[in-house]
Amino acid sequence: MSDNKKAVVLLSGGLDSVTALAIAQSEGYECSALSFRYAQRHDAELIASERLAKAMNVSNHQIFDMDLSIFKNSALTNHALEVPTRLSDDIPITYVPARNTIFLSVALGWAEVLDASAIFIGVNAVDYSGYPDCRPEFIHAFQSMSDLATKMGVEGKGVKVMTPLINLTKAEIIQKGMALGVDYSLTVSCYQATADGKACGRCDSCKLRRQGFADAGVKDPTKYQ
Amino acid sequence: MSDNKKAVVLLSGGLDSVTALAIAQSEGYECSALSFRYAQRHDAELIASERLAKAMNVSNHQIFDMDLSIFKNSALTNHALEVPTRLSDDIPITYVPARNTIFLSVALGWAEVLDASAIFIGVNAVDYSGYPDCRPEFIHAFQSMSDLATKMGVEGKGVKVMTPLINLTKAEIIQKGMALGVDYSLTVSCYQATADGKACGRCDSCKLRRQGFADAGVKDPTKYQ
Repeated sequence: MSDNKKAVVLLSGGLDSVTALAIAQSEGYECSALSFRYAQRHDAELIASERLAKAMNVSNHQIFDMDLSIFKNSALTNHALEVPTRLSDDIPITYVPARNTIFLSVALGWAEVLDASAIFIGVNAVDYSGYPDCRPEFIHAFQSMSDLATKMGVEGKGVKVMTPLINLTKAEIIQKGMALGVDYSLTVSCYQATADGKACGRCDSCKLRRQGFADAGVKDPTKYQ
Repeated sequence: MSDNKKAVVLLSGGLDSVTALAIAQSEGYECSALSFRYAQRHDAELIASERLAKAMNVSNHQIFDMDLSIFKNSALTNHALEVPTRLSDDIPITYVPARNTIFLSVALGWAEVLDASAIFIGVNAVDYSGYPDCRPEFIHAFQSMSDLATKMGVEGKGVKVMTPLINLTKAEIIQKGMALGVDYSLTVSCYQATADGKACGRCDSCKLRRQGFADAGVKDPTKYQ
């Protein structure tokens, strides 16, 4: 039994990822946080990720630059496209092709460098936007692939992909985070937040978040525009 | 039956990837080429990739920037480490954690943007350095994962990962490329080439390449230092 309790946590600066971080820490993991500057619409979530890393005593936080603006069919990386304000039955235009695959792949490499045994990702398949790479079957397939991809995997010490939020409702995520002392006023979830982190209140992400606080019976700490 | 014959080809600037490109073109694919500036030891291979894309009439060639210098345990991304000059039985220090996973993930996203049906990657599991992410079992697992990762995959139009070189010897790769008119004098394989693309002749990559030309009975066009 390994006593390696190091983890890489994907930290976007939003509500879910910081809850995943709080859970990882509560389970005794020494966490390194990884955020991405990938040509998203605003930097407010990255500023939030720095604020959160600091508030939660994460000493190793990397913001990784990769310019996904060549992915021109997503409203998150092509700023000429409009962010929709209605929840859709289909995969919405805010879908960024292969985003979680790319983020998890970089996390996998970094985990191997750090000799970490786990990657935490705050994906959620209940109150979510219908992105294919948030589903449990995707995560399982990524796990199988990653066990074959790396030197650690070949040596039987593959990195475990942890998804503590995957089956929780947004309200349950918030309740869990509150119990662990997360300060959600530091987070930014909005797809089109202002530079100082104020939320639009209308995009998918805002709607799911706002409903989550209501359902959890918790006062919504979000700063709206 | 789809008549989509668009492909993304991972093009490093070396011998294998350009052969994969030539094969994809010979099979009728309209190819977009993807290269990575990932903090490798030199730019000579990227310059080679541009030269090759031009020589082979690839009109869409992207060099994607991502700084993997946070991966400090690889001799390719940590320039303080020395590139070994002896072939090893173990996975060598030139191994970059999760590199092919990361490259294929970005290629997957770009393939979805371009509505491409295939990704070509010049991995080879015969005359290779023992990297885990060059093996057929890794490629199969990546394929399964990618079918679940994307919108195209969910719609049953997943991108096919093509590895035309995987079971060939280096000599067979060279013979195949020569038959397709590849000009190998334009390629750079060396891990520590000079700025103008001259090879060291001593690293794993140089040794495998030099032996390949000898075995193929082809004059080695490599410019050595």
